[in-house]
Amino acid sequence: MKNDTLLRALARQPTAYTPIWLMRQAGRYLPEYNAMRAKAGSFLTLAKTPALATEVTLQPLERFPLDAAILFSDILTIPDAMGLGLEFAEGEGPRFARPLRDERAIGALAVPDPSAELGYVLDAVRQIRRALAERVPLIGFAGSPFTLACYMIEGSASDDWRTVKTMRHARPDLLHHVLEVNTRAVTAYLQAQVAAGIQVAMIFDTWGGTLAYEDYVPFSLAYAQRIVAALEVPTIIFTKGGAPWLGQMMASGVSAVGLDWTNDAQQARLLAAGRVALQGNLDPSALFAPEAAVRAAARRTLDAFGPEPGHVFNLGHGIAPATPVSAVAALVDEVRAYSSARAKNNKPS
Amino acid sequence: MKNDTLLRALARQPTAYTPIWLMRQAGRYLPEYNAMRAKAGSFLTLAKTPALATEVTLQPLERFPLDAAILFSDILTIPDAMGLGLEFAEGEGPRFARPLRDERAIGALAVPDPSAELGYVLDAVRQIRRALAERVPLIGFAGSPFTLACYMIEGSASDDWRTVKTMRHARPDLLHHVLEVNTRAVTAYLQAQVAAGIQVAMIFDTWGGTLAYEDYVPFSLAYAQRIVAALEVPTIIFTKGGAPWLGQMMASGVSAVGLDWTNDAQQARLLAAGRVALQGNLDPSALFAPEAAVRAAARRTLDAFGPEPGHVFNLGHGIAPATPVSAVAALVDEVRAYSSARAKNNKPS
Repeated sequence: MKNDTLLRALARQPTAYTPIWLMRQAGRYLPEYNAMRAKAGSFLTLAKTPALATEVTLQPLERFPLDAAILFSDILTIPDAMGLGLEFAEGEGPRFARPLRDERAIGALAVPDPSAELGYVLDAVRQIRRALAERVPLIGFAGSPFTLACYMIEGSASDDWRTVKTMRHARPDLLHHVLEVNTRAVTAYLQAQVAAGIQVAMIFDTWGGTLAYEDYVPFSLAYAQRIVAALEVPTIIFTKGGAPWLGQMMASGVSAVGLDWTNDAQQARLLAAGRVALQGNLDPSALFAPEAAVRAAARRTLDAFGPEPGHVFNLGHGIAPATPVSAVAALVDEVRAYSSARAKNNKPS
Repeated sequence: MKNDTLLRALARQPTAYTPIWLMRQAGRYLPEYNAMRAKAGSFLTLAKTPALATEVTLQPLERFPLDAAILFSDILTIPDAMGLGLEFAEGEGPRFARPLRDERAIGALAVPDPSAELGYVLDAVRQIRRALAERVPLIGFAGSPFTLACYMIEGSASDDWRTVKTMRHARPDLLHHVLEVNTRAVTAYLQAQVAAGIQVAMIFDTWGGTLAYEDYVPFSLAYAQRIVAALEVPTIIFTKGGAPWLGQMMASGVSAVGLDWTNDAQQARLLAAGRVALQGNLDPSALFAPEAAVRAAARRTLDAFGPEPGHVFNLGHGIAPATPVSAVAALVDEVRAYSSARAKNNKPS
């Protein structure tokens, strides 16, 4: 591996600088991505065609000296493979043609065979690894069982996830059944991604933070934890709005906890106490500022996480589609320059 | 005052039971509210006609033995009085005809005179107080300066508040100017509500929790705190997603901190250490469960907050429009019965 900075940071080993990658780094803020997507006709065509997914995955690495590639895909490939019928209407979010709305549909839910229904993802992983030629590590990912259940039961994104939350209160047994099937599906899927070549596995728990305090562990983290335990590569878990449960996430066996921008980085670092790495957590909206302000925000974030090993720089959420490319360039440059200088100054003489 | 349980709880004095009221208790889950709204033609007509606002405010008290009334109004009355042109399109959220989009509009922003432009709210407060006849205390409210700024700058609700957040990073001076004007406007407005008769003032900081960790205090809480200091009645502040800043909110001089459902009630209670009352925090979706589950959830919440004085039972967010009325009845009944029995058993003999 030419650049193993990310892997070393996830293992909390010293690095020459703080590694950086960005959630949704292959995405709509890049003109070359938009051109590819327009040619392909849709997001799903990009995601389901390994050669296109490979090209899109590598696009941000051609522009910026990022320390990781992340598989271009979507968390909803699993419920799609389960037969729920994933659709992306233009200008809207994802939608399922056949959401889980009754006990019969839930009872019939089966774990897809990754090498069959999700073979296109594994092909993309293999092609990306070849194209990367050991330049940087490849991160694979999946949605958390709870986050997948949210979309599967609600049918699309929601302000209040009323259908899934009603099920949690009125029929918790049904929700636990969906979560159980999802856990087995995500485990098999991520194990297959590892076999195909991913070097880090990330679990996106986008909606776990909407659960009541007492519900987060039994309905989200407990299931994600079983997946983490079944994987032989470093793992990262990210729960948007997860601040109330940082301690539990840190004790879940993951290599790193992803923090959104509402988290106090200094307190998270004290709580982690060197037992787990941290990833995050610049507010994506900071990239709409003038360049000098972007650079200042990068330095503030690095200062908050401190000079100790075990920080992976990232945004606190996916990069916004309207982000100026020049701001991303300034961010990546500043993180590298400032953290390199700091690492040099801190080195024991 | 016939029932001063809420006021005693806000002062952290012992009460015969835990007082309860519900955010949006006068609202769309009540058939009599929907009938009134249909007759009036719109939400704004209800809010702007003191006799109708009075009737709607009292509706939930006729059904349930609640321990407070809350003024029927909207947080956006202030920017409406500033001339931004509030509209509610049917089935959608609020929208401003003239959002703040340039330096000139921001420079021209002026503090409205509550007794002139907002006289209808003060009339409603006086009428409600007469109609209540000292039955329970009346809570008045306003939006926090930051939450008002979100709507005023963005023009309507948003997933990511990109316009306001871009201003925070690109032109923080302009955002601070809006916040300064809003602070003076909310202070004058709540002082006028107090003069008209409200007995508790609540500040709704619905969007403060979307700020980056380091931004919440300087852009939201610091301004809200100035308002709290200028009021002579008990105060409650509620920040949705405010878990990362509980300690700062508790130290802000408020009588009570409102907690959303993601907060750990037991930890909040330890952190409050008897210095501040707590309000909350049942997940509103728990009201979609069967009655026995609603009652069990009420008991779990009461157990989490413990038997010490200083808890006001509420939901962790506004009650959902589709909530069954029977579930609200079960909740209010269980909170009264369970907390009465507990208070009796805990009484020193």
